[in-house]
Amino acid sequence: MTHTNNEILQLFESALAQMQTPEEPELLYAPIIYSMSGGGKRLRPVLLLLTAEAFGGNVEEAMPAALAVEIFHNFTLLHDDIMDNADVRRGKPSVFAKWGGNVALLSGDAMLITAYKHLARVAPDVLPRVMNIFGDMALEVCEGQQYDMDFESMDGVSVEEYMQMIERKTSALLSGSATIGATMAGASEDDIRKIYRFATELGLAFQLQDDVLDSFGDEALGKKIGGDILEGKKTFLMVQAVNRADDMEREVLRTTHRDASLSDDEKISRIKALYEKLEVRRIAEQQIELRFERALSILDTLSIDQARTATLREFARNLMGRKK
Amino acid sequence: MTHTNNEILQLFESALAQMQTPEEPELLYAPIIYSMSGGGKRLRPVLLLLTAEAFGGNVEEAMPAALAVEIFHNFTLLHDDIMDNADVRRGKPSVFAKWGGNVALLSGDAMLITAYKHLARVAPDVLPRVMNIFGDMALEVCEGQQYDMDFESMDGVSVEEYMQMIERKTSALLSGSATIGATMAGASEDDIRKIYRFATELGLAFQLQDDVLDSFGDEALGKKIGGDILEGKKTFLMVQAVNRADDMEREVLRTTHRDASLSDDEKISRIKALYEKLEVRRIAEQQIELRFERALSILDTLSIDQARTATLREFARNLMGRKK
Repeated sequence: MTHTNNEILQLFESALAQMQTPEEPELLYAPIIYSMSGGGKRLRPVLLLLTAEAFGGNVEEAMPAALAVEIFHNFTLLHDDIMDNADVRRGKPSVFAKWGGNVALLSGDAMLITAYKHLARVAPDVLPRVMNIFGDMALEVCEGQQYDMDFESMDGVSVEEYMQMIERKTSALLSGSATIGATMAGASEDDIRKIYRFATELGLAFQLQDDVLDSFGDEALGKKIGGDILEGKKTFLMVQAVNRADDMEREVLRTTHRDASLSDDEKISRIKALYEKLEVRRIAEQQIELRFERALSILDTLSIDQARTATLREFARNLMGRKK
Repeated sequence: MTHTNNEILQLFESALAQMQTPEEPELLYAPIIYSMSGGGKRLRPVLLLLTAEAFGGNVEEAMPAALAVEIFHNFTLLHDDIMDNADVRRGKPSVFAKWGGNVALLSGDAMLITAYKHLARVAPDVLPRVMNIFGDMALEVCEGQQYDMDFESMDGVSVEEYMQMIERKTSALLSGSATIGATMAGASEDDIRKIYRFATELGLAFQLQDDVLDSFGDEALGKKIGGDILEGKKTFLMVQAVNRADDMEREVLRTTHRDASLSDDEKISRIKALYEKLEVRRIAEQQIELRFERALSILDTLSIDQARTATLREFARNLMGRKK
């Protein structure tokens, strides 16, 4: 008898609630508690646990690794917010804004160490392998963040470079989580490779959809539209557009966000009009569809009973905000 | 046949030289190479390897853990330099000064992850234990750094609080290294506890001596005197002095470093005169002697052949810059 997706989430939340954090020094540990209890969808630990169970593994055994990936994820947010000067996280003041850069830095370090402390509780027979997957994943996330920062000051970012960046920055943590879950459950090498690809494609679809929604989402859903455009951020839409634009259009794409003569709304609508004209919205939506379908079809090829992939399919649909 | 201290250092340096670091993204990895090849005395890995060998362990087996502690140590320097706004490290520009805070932050993160990647190569039968020691040690170092920063804005730091801070910030990495070496060599629980105390006491003696030399060292040895005094840093000398001073002296101790009417030399000589008058130099030197002797006498009580402790005694003397 396996668990539903919602049960898995509940099991994870109660394991997290039982996590002990020291009280002193307060400025080291209070930000960790603040960060870990600040919500979040727990995507990565849920994927890890669902994958473990799909391959016949045990949720309780996989829980230390699930805690490790979630703590790691939150660690990256603390440090990203320093690098990005970001004051808001999940609708609340970021640790960086609330306590300052030094606290966010050192508490983040303590979180990364804490993630590994949980990882150390993984069964010794799989621990070295799980540590290797975790370490590769963690380095990829750092690489993705560095490429993302590199892109800020680069003129010609190719679509390929952009995809490689988000494969590290966004997908790696999902594919690493799925791979750890499968490895702990004793999945075959072939299935492990496949589940890694499943999560990679899903992560790419998720990130591209995030890019599209930032410009074309529904404000009624509470999401502020156009933030990426106003920051002049190099998203999939922007990178594609720059690569498809003629010289004059390219100039508009590059300069609009810092054009003081335009209001925010004017900037956003000007860029969105160009995105439509250059068909990059359509291209992005095709890519999302392609990646999402590819992810699901990889599940068809796993050696396990197909019924066991139902929770993973549901996870994928939920992630993309889809009913079916 | 065991190795001499110098042979151990050479073995470590050649293992370090063989370490592979990716080339891209350059801003993530170049600072790691810069930091790891920037010299340093390799105290922690040498202590780890010497301890392993003293207890009959194998240097080659312990090498991954030795690399891990040295990379971890250098990671702390990268992040400390951000927090302290420090431009110079080992006589060269710090990573923070050379590449900026964001690069030092993210490269530091990648170093911490890399440290754990090496740790993952430790023999699986001792890996969980080694990871626990490493994790506790790493968190203690973070705690020490946080207390050190807390002290900057605190008025009354007690001597006891100061000692607890340096036990974390300086000793923990030495005691953790020694404990990992002994654990990997299969030392008894009793010997592991003792070697931990040996390295703790030695680390305290080392840090107190560092505090004393910053104010009373020999400029002829190339060390700039008085840096701590000019920064108004809460060292052992300062904390002791504040606790022993009368109200007027306390005011001098607190305000001299930011008295714009005084030259640097005047500030330094004024505080040093007070340190002598309040006898805190003598107290510090007594403490150093006490801790150092205590460390050496713990070695007498180990269950191993006393001849095997010779390299550890030499390590302790070298660390303290003593001939005998």
